[in-house]
Amino acid sequence: MSEYSVVGKRLPRLEGVSKSTGEAFYTDDLNLPRMLHGKILRSPLPHARILNIDASRALALPGVKAVVTGKDTKGAKYGVYARTSDQQCLAVDKVRYMGDEVAAVAAVDEDTAQEALSLIKVQYEELPAVFDPLEAMEPGAPAVHEVERNICGKNTMNYGNVEEGFRDSHYIRQDRFSTGAQAHCALEPHVAVASWETSGKLTVWTPNMSPFAKRLILAKTLGIPQSHIRVCKSYIGGAFGGKSELFSLDFCASLLSIKTGRPVKIRYTREEVFTTTRLRHPMIMEVKTGVRKDGTIMAREIRVIGNTGSYASTGILAVYLTCSSFFKTYRIPNLRYEGYCVYTNNPPSGAMRAHGTIQARFADESHLDMIAEELKMDPVEFRLKNARQTGDVYPNKSTVISCGLSDCITQAAEVSGWKEKRNAGTGARSQKAQVRSQGNRGVGMGCTTGLTSLNLSAFTPSAAFVKFNEDGRANLLTGAPENGQGTETMLAQICAEELGLGLDDIVVTAADTDVTPHDIGSYLMALTFVSGNAVKNAAADARKQVLEVASGMLEAPPDKLEAKNRRIYIKGRPERGLSFAEVIRQGLIKGVPILGKGHYMPNTEYLNVATGEGKFCPTYTFSSQVSEVEVDRETGEIKVLKATTAHDCGFAINPLDVEGQIQGCVATSQGLALSESVYWQEGKMLNPDFLNYGIPCSLDMPAMKPIIVESHDPEGPFGGKDAGETPTHVGPAAIANAIYNAAGVRIQEIPMTPDKVLKALEENRSR
Amino acid sequence: MSEYSVVGKRLPRLEGVSKSTGEAFYTDDLNLPRMLHGKILRSPLPHARILNIDASRALALPGVKAVVTGKDTKGAKYGVYARTSDQQCLAVDKVRYMGDEVAAVAAVDEDTAQEALSLIKVQYEELPAVFDPLEAMEPGAPAVHEVERNICGKNTMNYGNVEEGFRDSHYIRQDRFSTGAQAHCALEPHVAVASWETSGKLTVWTPNMSPFAKRLILAKTLGIPQSHIRVCKSYIGGAFGGKSELFSLDFCASLLSIKTGRPVKIRYTREEVFTTTRLRHPMIMEVKTGVRKDGTIMAREIRVIGNTGSYASTGILAVYLTCSSFFKTYRIPNLRYEGYCVYTNNPPSGAMRAHGTIQARFADESHLDMIAEELKMDPVEFRLKNARQTGDVYPNKSTVISCGLSDCITQAAEVSGWKEKRNAGTGARSQKAQVRSQGNRGVGMGCTTGLTSLNLSAFTPSAAFVKFNEDGRANLLTGAPENGQGTETMLAQICAEELGLGLDDIVVTAADTDVTPHDIGSYLMALTFVSGNAVKNAAADARKQVLEVASGMLEAPPDKLEAKNRRIYIKGRPERGLSFAEVIRQGLIKGVPILGKGHYMPNTEYLNVATGEGKFCPTYTFSSQVSEVEVDRETGEIKVLKATTAHDCGFAINPLDVEGQIQGCVATSQGLALSESVYWQEGKMLNPDFLNYGIPCSLDMPAMKPIIVESHDPEGPFGGKDAGETPTHVGPAAIANAIYNAAGVRIQEIPMTPDKVLKALEENRSR
Repeated sequence: MSEYSVVGKRLPRLEGVSKSTGEAFYTDDLNLPRMLHGKILRSPLPHARILNIDASRALALPGVKAVVTGKDTKGAKYGVYARTSDQQCLAVDKVRYMGDEVAAVAAVDEDTAQEALSLIKVQYEELPAVFDPLEAMEPGAPAVHEVERNICGKNTMNYGNVEEGFRDSHYIRQDRFSTGAQAHCALEPHVAVASWETSGKLTVWTPNMSPFAKRLILAKTLGIPQSHIRVCKSYIGGAFGGKSELFSLDFCASLLSIKTGRPVKIRYTREEVFTTTRLRHPMIMEVKTGVRKDGTIMAREIRVIGNTGSYASTGILAVYLTCSSFFKTYRIPNLRYEGYCVYTNNPPSGAMRAHGTIQARFADESHLDMIAEELKMDPVEFRLKNARQTGDVYPNKSTVISCGLSDCITQAAEVSGWKEKRNAGTGARSQKAQVRSQGNRGVGMGCTTGLTSLNLSAFTPSAAFVKFNEDGRANLLTGAPENGQGTETMLAQICAEELGLGLDDIVVTAADTDVTPHDIGSYLMALTFVSGNAVKNAAADARKQVLEVASGMLEAPPDKLEAKNRRIYIKGRPERGLSFAEVIRQGLIKGVPILGKGHYMPNTEYLNVATGEGKFCPTYTFSSQVSEVEVDRETGEIKVLKATTAHDCGFAINPLDVEGQIQGCVATSQGLALSESVYWQEGKMLNPDFLNYGIPCSLDMPAMKPIIVESHDPEGPFGGKDAGETPTHVGPAAIANAIYNAAGVRIQEIPMTPDKVLKALEENRSR
Repeated sequence: MSEYSVVGKRLPRLEGVSKSTGEAFYTDDLNLPRMLHGKILRSPLPHARILNIDASRALALPGVKAVVTGKDTKGAKYGVYARTSDQQCLAVDKVRYMGDEVAAVAAVDEDTAQEALSLIKVQYEELPAVFDPLEAMEPGAPAVHEVERNICGKNTMNYGNVEEGFRDSHYIRQDRFSTGAQAHCALEPHVAVASWETSGKLTVWTPNMSPFAKRLILAKTLGIPQSHIRVCKSYIGGAFGGKSELFSLDFCASLLSIKTGRPVKIRYTREEVFTTTRLRHPMIMEVKTGVRKDGTIMAREIRVIGNTGSYASTGILAVYLTCSSFFKTYRIPNLRYEGYCVYTNNPPSGAMRAHGTIQARFADESHLDMIAEELKMDPVEFRLKNARQTGDVYPNKSTVISCGLSDCITQAAEVSGWKEKRNAGTGARSQKAQVRSQGNRGVGMGCTTGLTSLNLSAFTPSAAFVKFNEDGRANLLTGAPENGQGTETMLAQICAEELGLGLDDIVVTAADTDVTPHDIGSYLMALTFVSGNAVKNAAADARKQVLEVASGMLEAPPDKLEAKNRRIYIKGRPERGLSFAEVIRQGLIKGVPILGKGHYMPNTEYLNVATGEGKFCPTYTFSSQVSEVEVDRETGEIKVLKATTAHDCGFAINPLDVEGQIQGCVATSQGLALSESVYWQEGKMLNPDFLNYGIPCSLDMPAMKPIIVESHDPEGPFGGKDAGETPTHVGPAAIANAIYNAAGVRIQEIPMTPDKVLKALEENRSR
């Protein structure tokens, strides 16, 4: 039986009822008195110089209250990192992709604003454009920004002695893989409402993953002190990494509100969401690995080219994450990598669930299966042989303090019936045998390592307040936003457990920069570990005070008291107990209102993405998946039958939510692997709608078997690490390896669409 | 030069701009989607039994969504004190005054709700009523409640040896005084919006003086845990003590919202505000004082009868405050008092600025002037002789830890030109001489003592949070509401001074029970002292952490550092300094978000109002006023020419606001003294409107000379005590004494209307 009362329990969401009844407040629900509606004018060209903007006819349209262009922005630029802030809030001199923001209009309604856009005349001088990252790196390619060979950033690492490692290898293999773009497809399109008060206060509602980061970038771009901006909570209809940066609508709604003195709402159309709010980075990866006969990996050399599109956004981090993923899951004694983040005139790429890593895992896990085949080793055995273990030290000197990777591999294999199914797989014995076979089912495995937070300078720590009410219940104030993944419930569980209360006793106020403490935000898989620890520390501070008050009432020293299940009593003597309400009330009478505060800073250093130096991550999560697929040899269609996914989340604060997250990860990764394609033609996205984009729906999903592996992290809150992202990494590789097991074809480019499968089957036949 | 940078400065209000532009949010500005409008059905009879309520026709009216009656309340009752919770939320069995709440309706608009009220049929059995408290105490009088002789509560004290004191007196005098009712006349009528969510959360916006007290009483009456109710901030268009209790609209809006599942707004008409939201307690006071020839007061005996109207509300406290006021300003070695709080069928009385005390000061200060005349002592000398001093101990064993009373008296006298004007006063030499005189100007003095907070059990302490932003500015979270008196600015000044920041660097979030810490509220003159100290402590906690971070950066121990004027530097070396932004940012990078918390509990004991026991008040404020009046002997009209008001507020955190408060006090007290009259006829108020009520307007106001006396309280924040209420006490007495000085007539019943003056002049002439 668990020692815990609230954490580790399958508890329903705190906000479940309000979301189910429609009472939950989303940004688009907000309609303020005198509110205007905004629309943004976008570039119709992928690359052009702006010669002139004439908004006079738009301004003359009845109902139009303001038009802003680059001139109103004082040339303000933004970006994820200060040194790569390369995106103008509204284009001043150039547009760099089809969709780049040129002007914004505020009018009495959306239709009028839309009509006004058509009345703004922009004179462009079209420039040659480049869309392929390899072409972009060629001398003489069109320059998207004023950087050499369009290289936005470069990451390198040289660890151990790679040459020696290859020399000591019995077998060396080199492969090339590539991955495509992917859209987040949150059901809620981006929307922002900004309201400026004459006193100099700007209030902004916008679904976002870090209100503090949003406040910072709004402050910088608008030239307003952070403290004079309030980013307020609204519920978020999905984010998946796609609601973290500044978006043009945040900035334009704010600027238009300042200009008009009225609240302004801007809502993106689904097309705008697809084409302008970042996509997953397409990556080209060359992987070379040397192994001993026994399967020991000796050396690796990696080359990565990431297409960041027209602006840097998170590009250099994404390429770093791809490169560094090649040493995180398995022991690599000697390693060299070289990563290039390259500008093109495509829409900008940005952060997305499994950021940078899903690409690497597809390449790495496919590549390792190819080596295992040559070594005639079972892929499971091969992985277990090289798998990272607790105590391992990464090249950046970061130590793996808890590691359930081997358990993930073993359990996924066991639960999925790996041995039996793998051997039944048509490609099991040899590629040649498989070619002739008519078998069509197979299994494959993928493994991975995820971060739990990343040292991002001032945004690394989180903090929390806890305050008690006279009825013995408590308010938790946390800056962490609820993106739909169960954050508020999970943090409330941590708070309740630490205090000795029930989940229903915690009232959460979240993600409001004026009232909730500093928080890292809901990305980088940081929330459970960092914000969870902050909440735990704040609750512990409050608990200490509660026990001190109770100590006087129960005539026993605080360390002899237990706070559990809503009661406070002398350890072992629950009959001599008090309710929290009695203790809190007594505290107030004695003049001690219970206030807890706490913060948590991961034991980390700032990451230098260029060199990969810095112990930037406090702990890691692991995952392993066995996919079972069926290949239709006539149509090339892949049907994923089952996904058995083991995830070392440290400790499942809420197993119901962890399982839900694993299921979501399977969906996201399957979409990238098989069906989600962004079709571009000269920088124009051809399928910016759900009908043509190819996100898997519920009927496409396999039977899912989530397995929670608990490694009980020594630093995590109640041993927890993270549960929202890592299992996403493993789907494409597990599916690719299963396809090979089923049909003997190796697809090295995702999405693995039927045409590619058919082509590979054809090539196999003709061999 | 002051040692302070922010406190003690004449700084404009933080919310000044938003109030001036109309952007400030008041409750009636709130219009939620699907919101219904409520109206309350009231008793047309002063005393009756309810036989039946038939709401069927109202419910059938299109647009009516719900009707609630006493049956829906489970008989819930409320009151200011648990033991006198005698008011049914909606009357179940009886109505006790004309206006008592019987039913409430929610409809799609106010007109429909109003029409629905007329369709509710209530069958009453009329009962005999009683309106005069003396009649109510007679045997056989109609019983308003089931208590003997309609006595709601009794206060007594017997201190020293009164008989001996009178025996040792050379002169004994006994007088009777009475005071009338007064309405608060806040410009904003009472209004509430309640919104119930299916999840079980109730959010309430209602202008109020203590959101935590409002939450508590809503929780008790609705049967919902306190933590499931959120009372939110809106600005308050004046309160003056009249927005502290539960009002029927708070309860009915909540109940109707729960019943309909839609937000409900109820707004009171001005008539409802006048007739149902409490009035100042009319008091009858008999004062007997014995003095030595040299003016030393030897003994006192006091009898007070307070008319609490139909419900207890704050009645027993009001009568206690009246009784105890007779020993607070002057040294009284022997004292006996007996106070009765009596029910009648008038509208209920309740708290109002200068609660209980203004009545006593009118009586006491008039009475002392009458004694001074007999002793042939100058009233100023007489007062100075007996005035309380620092170190004095009150009968309840509470010590006066700072006292500027003598300074107030001396300075008010000096600045007003007391000596000269008093002697020029027609009544200066003798009453007889004055009768014959045609002079018409005179001056009079009144003095008083105010509390700074009162031990109210769990509501005694306040708390606060402070959190820093990366730009070096700070958020202050305080439960204290801004009632228009400058609270937020004053608390922000305290916070800024303690931190070393400027006023503009503090962003205040106030009075929201979900996010701001526990607070005593804006009454009992407690806010500066209690909440101010809580804020100071929270800021000191944050400051300590800021200095610790700066210590590492400046390589000096924290105690060698100074935080002042937005900079942190080594003491005496401001050139080696850092901005707050630099330090806060460094703290975040190091993992230390600055969070401060603090609370303050006055060093007090719970007050037993019945016996007056308990050191319930931590410190006291003092005030003295010289009024100069002109009496029109033809019409009896009194014109107040000048009010010179000295106030010992401890330390003026914001002198601009303190002066503003003194001016407001002068207005309130002059209204009670001269013009504000509630005319009742058999329980019906005849003048429930501004046209007939008689609140003084700006043209009625005298020249005002506020004098700030600073006694630098050892416990107060920066020495501050309070500045919102105490000077109110002194106006009626100062005016009464000035009238006597001007025209030789002594009016012992307020309001001192022209008819009373004419009658007294007539009596003097006919003597």
